[in-house]
Amino acid sequence: MKIHTILSPQLFSLFEKEVVDKQVLVIDILRATTSMVVMLENGATSVRPVAGVEEALRLKQENPALLIAGERNGFKVEGFEFGNSPQEFTPERVRGESLVITTTNGTQALSLSLAASHIWVGGFLNMNALVASICDTKKDVFLFCAGWKGHVNLEDTLFAGAVAQQLVDKGWAVADDATRAAMSLWLQAQGDLHGFLSEASHVQRFQSMHAESDLDVCLKCNTSGMSVRYENGVLVAIPS
Amino acid sequence: MKIHTILSPQLFSLFEKEVVDKQVLVIDILRATTSMVVMLENGATSVRPVAGVEEALRLKQENPALLIAGERNGFKVEGFEFGNSPQEFTPERVRGESLVITTTNGTQALSLSLAASHIWVGGFLNMNALVASICDTKKDVFLFCAGWKGHVNLEDTLFAGAVAQQLVDKGWAVADDATRAAMSLWLQAQGDLHGFLSEASHVQRFQSMHAESDLDVCLKCNTSGMSVRYENGVLVAIPS
Repeated sequence: MKIHTILSPQLFSLFEKEVVDKQVLVIDILRATTSMVVMLENGATSVRPVAGVEEALRLKQENPALLIAGERNGFKVEGFEFGNSPQEFTPERVRGESLVITTTNGTQALSLSLAASHIWVGGFLNMNALVASICDTKKDVFLFCAGWKGHVNLEDTLFAGAVAQQLVDKGWAVADDATRAAMSLWLQAQGDLHGFLSEASHVQRFQSMHAESDLDVCLKCNTSGMSVRYENGVLVAIPS
Repeated sequence: MKIHTILSPQLFSLFEKEVVDKQVLVIDILRATTSMVVMLENGATSVRPVAGVEEALRLKQENPALLIAGERNGFKVEGFEFGNSPQEFTPERVRGESLVITTTNGTQALSLSLAASHIWVGGFLNMNALVASICDTKKDVFLFCAGWKGHVNLEDTLFAGAVAQQLVDKGWAVADDATRAAMSLWLQAQGDLHGFLSEASHVQRFQSMHAESDLDVCLKCNTSGMSVRYENGVLVAIPS
């Protein structure tokens, strides 16, 4: 089984045919795919990612009981119940609720991945669970970094490298230079992830937004044992 | 002054407006931009990069004295005098000659860069000369990796990292995560470039083509003191 890495949605067209009937792991560490796992971990009944603000508002109009979450350019959308901070999705606010989420980059990567047979979602917080699910599925995997408006970013690339390293340790093969680069970066960063990322564009953007405490949540490893799969338009929790 | 890195032509559209009236350094280490420097270093009178095989053959028909060089998928094109190995362009064969070169990735990246005010070309062999030219020009620089058929590759990324590191040492600022990633990779690779690249896709492709001796030429630093600029459709040597 082989590991491929797609460093940004802008590169996806190169892999469009290859992902058919394979596995894709969608990665948007800061913060979409991290928040999606937190929602399910904290008891949301269903989570539906959608690409646009308009679609989220239309769903809400049809079903006012839905709670809608999302950001554009990193800020909460007006009229939404939640932004995109994983710390907002507390058990008190999400248990038993149906949520809709739309984000700048994460949901776009999800909607590009529909031809895959398995679409996994997550981040550092459920890394080991994701690796176990990918291994159980036994198909080539594409680690799909959501990036930032088409640009490659460090945190998604590092997480791709971390997952690739675990798969290589289990005997998987590396298919491309993007995976090799991601693994080398992870090797350098793993001892001090916060330090390594302190210069990253997205981290600096967070500091300017006073959302630094989100970073701790997004970079902490394996606080959840839950793998998350995207299926028929909704996210499904797969407990380990 | 800021340093940006474009990891593949597939990402160029994100930078299209930004490069206008700025500097671009086009990087295709294995082997196009390395070979272009060797041609001029060994005395070619003029070197014209063109995007397509048909254009090269048409120019040759108009002017049979032209020598044409190029590869598709790594192999010499039928009817061309040269392939794309830097070792073919000996002083005996190129001194005083006018050459045309077309390659899979390098000339494509050049043709995308035309809105820049300065387009530099080269690789490890003329690294210091390129850095000096970029510094003298005093405009934001875009390190443009030609990649392989749209995919990111390690050798071009590493060279971008090497140039970025030199510019940072001279006080330039890093503009994006792609540059940070390239610099981190260079930091890891610089002590043993051949070893670091031994797993890279392109290097393995070279081994299968029995073109390993080209690697030594393409990875050796500063064997040329010549900077090369692309201007009005031809490559111009700028001695240091």
